Amino acid sequence: MTEQMTSQHAQSDSWHLGLFMHMPRMSRLEVLENTLIQVDALGSIVSLTRPDEPEYTERLHTARRSGALTEMSSQQMMIPGLVDLHVHAPQWPQLGKALHLPLQDWLNHYTFPLEARYQDIDFARQVYPSLVRALLANGTTTAMYFATVHEEATELLAATCLALGQRAYVGRVAMDDPQQCPDYYRDSDAQAAVAASERSIHAIRQLSGNQNQLVKPVITPRFIPSCTNDLLAGLGELAARHQCHVQTHCSESDWEHDYVLNRLGKTDTQALADFGLLNRHTVLAHSNFITDSDMGRIQEAGSGIAHCPLSNSYFADSVFPLRRALDKSLRVGLGTDIAGGHSASLFNTCQHAVASSRMLESGVDARLPAAERGQANARINFLEAFYLATAGGADVLDSPTGLFEPGRQFDALLLDLDCPENRLNEFTRANDWEDLLGCVVYNTQPCNIGRVWIDGRCVHG
Amino acid sequence: MTEQMTSQHAQSDSWHLGLFMHMPRMSRLEVLENTLIQVDALGSIVSLTRPDEPEYTERLHTARRSGALTEMSSQQMMIPGLVDLHVHAPQWPQLGKALHLPLQDWLNHYTFPLEARYQDIDFARQVYPSLVRALLANGTTTAMYFATVHEEATELLAATCLALGQRAYVGRVAMDDPQQCPDYYRDSDAQAAVAASERSIHAIRQLSGNQNQLVKPVITPRFIPSCTNDLLAGLGELAARHQCHVQTHCSESDWEHDYVLNRLGKTDTQALADFGLLNRHTVLAHSNFITDSDMGRIQEAGSGIAHCPLSNSYFADSVFPLRRALDKSLRVGLGTDIAGGHSASLFNTCQHAVASSRMLESGVDARLPAAERGQANARINFLEAFYLATAGGADVLDSPTGLFEPGRQFDALLLDLDCPENRLNEFTRANDWEDLLGCVVYNTQPCNIGRVWIDGRCVHG
Ligand SMILES: [Zn+2]
Ligand SMILES: [Zn+2]
Repeated sequence: MTEQMTSQHAQSDSWHLGLFMHMPRMSRLEVLENTLIQVDALGSIVSLTRPDEPEYTERLHTARRSGALTEMSSQQMMIPGLVDLHVHAPQWPQLGKALHLPLQDWLNHYTFPLEARYQDIDFARQVYPSLVRALLANGTTTAMYFATVHEEATELLAATCLALGQRAYVGRVAMDDPQQCPDYYRDSDAQAAVAASERSIHAIRQLSGNQNQLVKPVITPRFIPSCTNDLLAGLGELAARHQCHVQTHCSESDWEHDYVLNRLGKTDTQALADFGLLNRHTVLAHSNFITDSDMGRIQEAGSGIAHCPLSNSYFADSVFPLRRALDKSLRVGLGTDIAGGHSASLFNTCQHAVASSRMLESGVDARLPAAERGQANARINFLEAFYLATAGGADVLDSPTGLFEPGRQFDALLLDLDCPENRLNEFTRANDWEDLLGCVVYNTQPCNIGRVWIDGRCVHG
Repeated sequence: MTEQMTSQHAQSDSWHLGLFMHMPRMSRLEVLENTLIQVDALGSIVSLTRPDEPEYTERLHTARRSGALTEMSSQQMMIPGLVDLHVHAPQWPQLGKALHLPLQDWLNHYTFPLEARYQDIDFARQVYPSLVRALLANGTTTAMYFATVHEEATELLAATCLALGQRAYVGRVAMDDPQQCPDYYRDSDAQAAVAASERSIHAIRQLSGNQNQLVKPVITPRFIPSCTNDLLAGLGELAARHQCHVQTHCSESDWEHDYVLNRLGKTDTQALADFGLLNRHTVLAHSNFITDSDMGRIQEAGSGIAHCPLSNSYFADSVFPLRRALDKSLRVGLGTDIAGGHSASLFNTCQHAVASSRMLESGVDARLPAAERGQANARINFLEAFYLATAGGADVLDSPTGLFEPGRQFDALLLDLDCPENRLNEFTRANDWEDLLGCVVYNTQPCNIGRVWIDGRCVHG
């Protein structure tokens, strides 16, 4: 299947003409009207030409002659593909279920038994293609996945992403502490866990068809409470040796943050740094309880944060101080946190990132005086959320995507603004670009996502 | 058009067979498997027969012979139609736009200029059918609407609901205070406003085709700040004279709550009671800042509350204390608050009702100790949210809908659980009804809403 799909890759340049919107910086929406984008056979953007440039007519002529021009209608536009920095792939069958249970019940009666089932590769074969297809249909062109402890199922997830053309970061989950992990679902000990993670790194890098490393391995300690110190230290060495991405949960909730303080006498962030797990290639999920000094350390290390507002409402006891992190120049993107988050859509995630930032700013308890209720200047707006879901997430991964500019890979969504089931553009004034993007961020559904490209290759629609 | 559609009404009984879920009480999910529901020509549920009842075989035989049996597949189910208690119909073109602006800018640059445009009936003719169709496609079988000050456009909205078959409560907005309303968009004075509202009541009740009062008028002071005392008193008299529903905004935000305290020396709730506007037929939107004694007064009056969690995140400075209100036996339903809320979907509204109740409980500011951060016991779960969106909302309106039981009108949604664009049932264990309903509440999209009935008549799909 992999070879067959690779052979469908465009053999020469392709072209896209119409309306593009993207955000080169968090504060700047750039609108490219009637613009022509040229993409080479490897999916790299070669040129971007606006109508007022001298080369425009000539290039448009070339594009039309090529027979490989996608020409948008007046009711279509393109945006960069969406980047989901935090997905628990094995939890896909659990989406929207049992979120009302206490965390311990959710883990012990739903999540751990479900994750343990991926020992059975046939079960993984049922689930993973369904997940990846759904994420593509929701516009997620890049996803960073926690898999399970199982090497075979983890490799299958990576191979599935590769076969379906999704840019992905896939991590075998490492968890060995018998005090916090169930006997039926954990690594037997630290040494075995490190060895399994190392084999998984090799297996993913060497997947057939993965020459361009569209799918990358990730060192993935579940979180400090489920890992012994030996395991964390071993994974730190692995990260240095293989120059590989790292992902884990960080200071998510009161319980978790306090557990680490008690066990190690320091915060998650400090501990991860000391274990060699906080570096430029690290993505920390949540981080709701990080201190100002943690923020400084994360910024210095160049690590990124996966903000997951949907699951935070259920499990994090607080709202991540996103604005404060951004003001301190931390690199942040968004995560759905499937299935702690109930939605596969980064548009939903954007909506909730905005809403929860406003709830952090205003506070929630009307019985308190307004001045004591919230945290001043905490809000973000939909443009900033859209930045985080596109260029921001790509930046966290140092991925050459997230923007339409020469040298970047063409990861993009074609939006049908006027599909009959959900009209996004019915009442928008011409050229009111912010309003139009507001409609997109607040109300896009899969029916509006007409086509999806990754590395210049159409993978959906 | 009205007559033509009325004539399509079933001339004799129709039948529905399959899986039904509804919530007779907030704490009780009832699942009716392989159940047969008989609906008469006026849309009233005549009988509900389970397989273990002696009449089942005979009735199923009759149903099959009738040629009017809707038989669900194993990947379909029905739930009661959804009730949206708070929609600003004229703001439909503004959905998802400009929510990042300060409230005053949002009102003065977007909302008021937009609402003023309904002076032009042709504009109303463009917008209102689009709105009502979208709400039906999202499963909203009953909607309570604020229209605008314009009598003609208000009547058009009511006629549109009637023609498209939606159960609706439609109010001409009354607003006359020159201090708070723009000159280009308000009633000229209290007397004129009361007279216009009274004419609007008559016009809606007497609409051609409205013999069964599928569409009802509502007395609609925008909110206390935009109305003079004379207007509020006049509308109170109108409410008594016409035994008509009343809707308004109540104690929504710090500014609004304090404004009323300053102007009238009492809370919104007390003031509305004194003006004769707090009764069994009153629906109060928001009510975030109501006091315990306000709650007692609302409970005694039998008034209802339209909880609008999506717009509250933007404009209400707090989370409505829903659990406290429910514990005090207040009647509560949900509202989208289009376009202060960015979504037409009551499923989205349920999701945010749950999430914001949990954020009220946990608090939002991680810098505070956990015990000082939130409000204990504030959470609701998805089942309770689903109750509010169906039977709860119907109860607020004293509407004979919201449940599948003999004597109630058949307002229902047929859900396609396994539609290719969004599979809700792919990994649900057989008979795990709470999990299945969780998937429905958390992830239903319009593509999953196959058909919609109101008063027994199919109005969508
Ligand atoms: Zn997670
Ligand atoms: Zn409102």
